[in-house]
Amino acid sequence: MAFLSTQPYKGTRDFYPDDLQIRDWIFSKMREVCASFGYREYDAPMLEPFELYAAKSGEEIVNQQLYWMMDKGDRKMAVRPEMTPSMARMVAGKIHELPKPVRWFSIPNLWRYERPQRGRLREHWQLNVDVLGADPLYADAELLTLAFSMIRKFGGEAHVSIRVNNRRLMDELFGKRMGLSAENTLKVTKAIDARPKIGEEKYAAALSEAGVTDAQRKDLESFFSSSLEKVATDFPCAGSEELVKLFRLLEESGIAASGSEAKVVFDPTIMRGLDYYTGTVFEMFDTSPENNRAMFGGGRYDNLVGLFGKDKLSGVGFGMGDVTLRDFLETHSLLPKMPGTVDVFVSLPKEESRGQAERIARDLREAGLRVITPLEVGGFGTQLKQAVKHGARHAVLFGDAEFAEGKVLIKNLALNSQETVAFGEIVEKIRG
Amino acid sequence: MAFLSTQPYKGTRDFYPDDLQIRDWIFSKMREVCASFGYREYDAPMLEPFELYAAKSGEEIVNQQLYWMMDKGDRKMAVRPEMTPSMARMVAGKIHELPKPVRWFSIPNLWRYERPQRGRLREHWQLNVDVLGADPLYADAELLTLAFSMIRKFGGEAHVSIRVNNRRLMDELFGKRMGLSAENTLKVTKAIDARPKIGEEKYAAALSEAGVTDAQRKDLESFFSSSLEKVATDFPCAGSEELVKLFRLLEESGIAASGSEAKVVFDPTIMRGLDYYTGTVFEMFDTSPENNRAMFGGGRYDNLVGLFGKDKLSGVGFGMGDVTLRDFLETHSLLPKMPGTVDVFVSLPKEESRGQAERIARDLREAGLRVITPLEVGGFGTQLKQAVKHGARHAVLFGDAEFAEGKVLIKNLALNSQETVAFGEIVEKIRG
Repeated sequence: MAFLSTQPYKGTRDFYPDDLQIRDWIFSKMREVCASFGYREYDAPMLEPFELYAAKSGEEIVNQQLYWMMDKGDRKMAVRPEMTPSMARMVAGKIHELPKPVRWFSIPNLWRYERPQRGRLREHWQLNVDVLGADPLYADAELLTLAFSMIRKFGGEAHVSIRVNNRRLMDELFGKRMGLSAENTLKVTKAIDARPKIGEEKYAAALSEAGVTDAQRKDLESFFSSSLEKVATDFPCAGSEELVKLFRLLEESGIAASGSEAKVVFDPTIMRGLDYYTGTVFEMFDTSPENNRAMFGGGRYDNLVGLFGKDKLSGVGFGMGDVTLRDFLETHSLLPKMPGTVDVFVSLPKEESRGQAERIARDLREAGLRVITPLEVGGFGTQLKQAVKHGARHAVLFGDAEFAEGKVLIKNLALNSQETVAFGEIVEKIRG
Repeated sequence: MAFLSTQPYKGTRDFYPDDLQIRDWIFSKMREVCASFGYREYDAPMLEPFELYAAKSGEEIVNQQLYWMMDKGDRKMAVRPEMTPSMARMVAGKIHELPKPVRWFSIPNLWRYERPQRGRLREHWQLNVDVLGADPLYADAELLTLAFSMIRKFGGEAHVSIRVNNRRLMDELFGKRMGLSAENTLKVTKAIDARPKIGEEKYAAALSEAGVTDAQRKDLESFFSSSLEKVATDFPCAGSEELVKLFRLLEESGIAASGSEAKVVFDPTIMRGLDYYTGTVFEMFDTSPENNRAMFGGGRYDNLVGLFGKDKLSGVGFGMGDVTLRDFLETHSLLPKMPGTVDVFVSLPKEESRGQAERIARDLREAGLRVITPLEVGGFGTQLKQAVKHGARHAVLFGDAEFAEGKVLIKNLALNSQETVAFGEIVEKIRG
């Protein structure tokens, strides 16, 4: 018989306990920050009807990246490639009952069929944070403030910049000023998005193919390096007005003020790939040169819930993947050493002490301590090594003389000290 | 345009925040108990190669219940219907590095194509706990002790019994004593498993079809009501010896002792459906008459990792589904009222107080409190209602006179009291 492979499916990860502990540490921080802003966690099924993504997720995801199957009832089901459509479905389902604004987050695993590479896998986890049903700019400002608090929670605020743009401003520029069709606007948008990857030559060719003249391309270049003040003067429109107002709010939140924490900047090259954005869009970048990539992105989507009924509700949200975040934390040495997961090791030198060892372990556990026993009888040295290997802080040891007197030896493995303690006082002694 | 449905896929659940809070409360208890026994959490990808299940998961799961698809690289991939095969794969992958015994747990979501009914859905979460590489009976005893501690943690110990049997004992009975072929043994096993569902008539017919004579069926009936002592005397074999030894260990753990906590009992009708069990098997039952179903089950599997290579390692494990557990907790009123998720509501009466409100909210968040603001300016009464709706304990209110003096009103919504506090003392006052 041929053996089965022990490797996980290409582009996915096994989380052995040490890895899961790190993932869990990261998720805990995410949950803490979201909770501190009053956001509540939700979850949805892993499989959704194919149509849910066909509607809005964009052609690349639907045609090339979706994992899907027919179920035995002939329904076409997809493994979720993103969370926003499920979230919109759930909000639409209780649109009249939910208190507004809806402040929600989730940390789902998502699947896309991609060529695995650094920062991009087939299965990844992604923090999704959304606010729906609030005045757009105030919600956008709160969400950006939360995003920045998140990265500060990880100690990474010195290494990032959040770059903000507005889709309406771009519509004004591409549609009204440059006279591009919707189709050509999309091509130009994608070329600008891809520019760092495809290089200058291909970028210029893509623009020219989309009907952008050389003169327009030069204008575009100068637009890209404009300050928000200049853009507001040169392009008075809903988009530039929103940007000005948003940045005023971000100054009040203290994250766009001039000075050392000015981490949120206007960047007119930010486009965002997904088709459903309609206003503010943003990305967070790792600013270290060797790692210059978007760590997360998001934006405003008007009326996504409109796919599910006549009610309207707009929102703003972002997604933050665990793979790029962990790369970021490792690059900048922001992952702390994980703490041990065992408090007490209760040894088992002979079969006769098993009953007593069990009782001690039970009492310690009921007092909230994490306790392991070796299960099998073994020598003093071997068992002490096991205790150390498990990172236990204390070991409970049975000496013959002490045992006869109803006592044990408690060894503090951190301090390398030990003392004799009566059976009934062990919990108190170890809890300190 | 036809609207998309807001309903989740048949047999699955949306977890709105109130539901997710309960799920999270349940999972936290599970994690706490597992950690108190030194078990560590792991996770594996949601999709695995189809062959992983074809090997051992049993015909019903593989042929009728598996969600699978061909990926774009022509690999046959399945959505996991159970966690044990992934766990065995991971253990096999690091068999020489992992410290023994391997004490692991996970709370994966699992998928099976079934007819949805009470206690059974297409997507459910399942706590999986396993010990590998330890002396079988000691490991079996620890696992059962952990399982019992789990149900005690939920306050449900008065409503359950854990019923234990041994596959080797059944092999002795069916094979050696009754002379049944392996195929007929399987049929009889399934009939005994299904007996409460199919009724006496069909049960008798199934046994007779499997070559069991009427006399043998009577003997079987008397076997089913035998005490462990009688079975040990009448059927001396490896299986009955293991059971006697296991129960002695469980008495030392205090969960099989006579008296009020005698919750673990010998039950020779416990069979377990899965094919890979080889020794101790067990199920936990809700003993209330209206809800008499298995809440979880498990057993010993010898050398599951043998599918992946030449090394051998045996283990024992159990799985506990979230759907039946939640039913159980609700039936017995064991779910507490969930606590509020907001500590402080910072009001926003006018645009001019926004900057100050933001600073107060930021300071409170940095002090570890969960804070929401209404985002939009609004009247006193409306905003106070919002604060109450969110379950906030405190509301920060801006009165004109107080604001001019650099002060706010802090309302304690639980006590319905209020006091005037300077901007700089708000955190201290609210943290108490």
